[in-house]
Amino acid sequence: MGALENRVRGTAPESASTGPITREELQLASRNHAAPLESLRWPITPPGMHYLLVHFDVPQLDPFDWRLSVGGAVGIRLKLTLGELMVRPSRTITVTMECAGNGRSRLDPRPISQPWDLGAFGTAEWTGTPLAPLLAEAELADDAVELVFTGADQGVQGGVAQHYQRSLSIDDALGNDVLLAYEMNGRPLPPAHGFPLRLLVPGWYGMASVKWLRSIEAVRTPFLGYQQAIAYRYQHDDGDPGTPVQRIRVRSLLAPPGVPDFLTRNRLLEAGPVMLRGRAWSGSAPVARVDVAVDGGWARAQLEPSIGPRAWHGFSFPWVATPGVHSLACRAWDASGASQPLEPEWNAQGMGNTAVQRFDVEVVAAGSLG
Amino acid sequence: MGALENRVRGTAPESASTGPITREELQLASRNHAAPLESLRWPITPPGMHYLLVHFDVPQLDPFDWRLSVGGAVGIRLKLTLGELMVRPSRTITVTMECAGNGRSRLDPRPISQPWDLGAFGTAEWTGTPLAPLLAEAELADDAVELVFTGADQGVQGGVAQHYQRSLSIDDALGNDVLLAYEMNGRPLPPAHGFPLRLLVPGWYGMASVKWLRSIEAVRTPFLGYQQAIAYRYQHDDGDPGTPVQRIRVRSLLAPPGVPDFLTRNRLLEAGPVMLRGRAWSGSAPVARVDVAVDGGWARAQLEPSIGPRAWHGFSFPWVATPGVHSLACRAWDASGASQPLEPEWNAQGMGNTAVQRFDVEVVAAGSLG
Repeated sequence: MGALENRVRGTAPESASTGPITREELQLASRNHAAPLESLRWPITPPGMHYLLVHFDVPQLDPFDWRLSVGGAVGIRLKLTLGELMVRPSRTITVTMECAGNGRSRLDPRPISQPWDLGAFGTAEWTGTPLAPLLAEAELADDAVELVFTGADQGVQGGVAQHYQRSLSIDDALGNDVLLAYEMNGRPLPPAHGFPLRLLVPGWYGMASVKWLRSIEAVRTPFLGYQQAIAYRYQHDDGDPGTPVQRIRVRSLLAPPGVPDFLTRNRLLEAGPVMLRGRAWSGSAPVARVDVAVDGGWARAQLEPSIGPRAWHGFSFPWVATPGVHSLACRAWDASGASQPLEPEWNAQGMGNTAVQRFDVEVVAAGSLG
Repeated sequence: MGALENRVRGTAPESASTGPITREELQLASRNHAAPLESLRWPITPPGMHYLLVHFDVPQLDPFDWRLSVGGAVGIRLKLTLGELMVRPSRTITVTMECAGNGRSRLDPRPISQPWDLGAFGTAEWTGTPLAPLLAEAELADDAVELVFTGADQGVQGGVAQHYQRSLSIDDALGNDVLLAYEMNGRPLPPAHGFPLRLLVPGWYGMASVKWLRSIEAVRTPFLGYQQAIAYRYQHDDGDPGTPVQRIRVRSLLAPPGVPDFLTRNRLLEAGPVMLRGRAWSGSAPVARVDVAVDGGWARAQLEPSIGPRAWHGFSFPWVATPGVHSLACRAWDASGASQPLEPEWNAQGMGNTAVQRFDVEVVAAGSLG
């Protein structure tokens, strides 16, 4: 099933429901790991806490058998071993990544797919070799319009048998921080994060950063595969062709203060001064401002510098917590002027729901939590 | 809230439901990561794929400030730094661990708690220092009956504010493979797995292997804290005091062959010969036998040696898949004669449901999956 044979086909990836959570959604939530919100306390998401979205099965690949092929509209076809990629010039970039479906389960009706609450994020240090020089070596044809990236993961979605495939325009693919990454946080990629090699497209939602990458094919007409033309679209409804999901929208999240109740995850906090802390990011422009609201009163948070041009900012907000139930919220703006909506903005696939995070904290007497 | 101040109190940890999955269950499933079944293809569960059950929040601990205290019914109270523990004699043990609630969501009615399907397992190489010599140095009192292990994780469960605490009898704690573990797979423990130090009790369900360990207290009367006397019990109903959950019951799981449908996780497989592979384990006795059934016809699988005395066995079963829908199942026995029930055996907390795994595979014509 080569990339050029693909046509726009397959059913819409999702329907929507006002009913209860389904078994299928639960099954997806168990497989596709969310970052717990307390992971926001770390600047680099610790091992095993970075979100994971795996469309099919995690493939078990032998790095010695594995090859990356570069072909299609190129002058010189390449076939590279992992070793050949690792001796090329390398870069390490700290990147905040997010799934485009983060926040999906908060929409009403709820598009039926991976039912993310707010945990589909993570920040890691990715090491790899820049893609652009490799394309130059392959003598990319002048009339190529896109590159199609194919992963080794395979399955069926929307009735279409497929390897996971996504494309990028030549311009986007030549961005100087687009990497072929083979390390995450200084270690070989874990299998679930794309071992032995993945594409890394900083600033874009995670669907662009194709894992278990096995081929790059330059094409002269736009790629119309399932994950490009059907899935990952902002659609008003199933009939709407929609617009492509691309860069990460601005978002902020607080690490909830205090301690949780096991079952409900309701927060309890002892009265007294507390520093509220969170992280904010955008793939579209630098984060410019974060506000925090306690009981609806919005005020500026202290925004820290980002930990890298492609990574999130910390923010903090001092609060003197008094007994009773209080509501907390946060909202970010980026330098483009974009901000988080106060209420969810519905779309058929549940993409890019960056509505502000709101939650309650029950403040109890100091010393009562032991 | 010292261990000795605990009394049996708190409400039963769970109720049961015949209704749909709740938001609270979904939230727990997102936080508490399941191993995907394809991880069974690896003898050591790759980074980020080992199951995780975190009762409260993952604590962020400074390893330089952190101390382990050993006290209570001892002749010499100890306070140890991580460095002091790491220069002690070390052992590395390959251990298959499992959550006692694995399989819970398959019970009907469904006890309401972390809604595991089958993924609450993992195998890792844990390195640490044996507990027994440390207790000898502390001059454990002759009349001590248990050790209480307290983690730094804190919250509320069943109405009880608590640090996570569990006890072991002196005999169980002196077992020669009980470790104070500071490495997982040759690296410092990830925060979610208990950094900087956790207890490791091979053969027992995971609740015994207290994470973020900060104190060990020898006691002269049995510990009656929430996680010991209320939670982690095999109970017929809420009124039944039940019996304690301890060692891991025998279980086997197949890595489903073929490829999945994204949304349903239904399996598709091309017709032809395929080697079915899985893993089997027991914390109670060596695994003695695994059977596999295709369309209800049970036959012996090939059982491999375990990868360590405390770790699982691989097994394999050749199958020539013919077009159509086929049902697969597997069942293990251990040397004690225990085996997996063919149907779930209900208990109020949804503990130890090792009913045989059964699933369907749709076999399609060779070549049709691309």
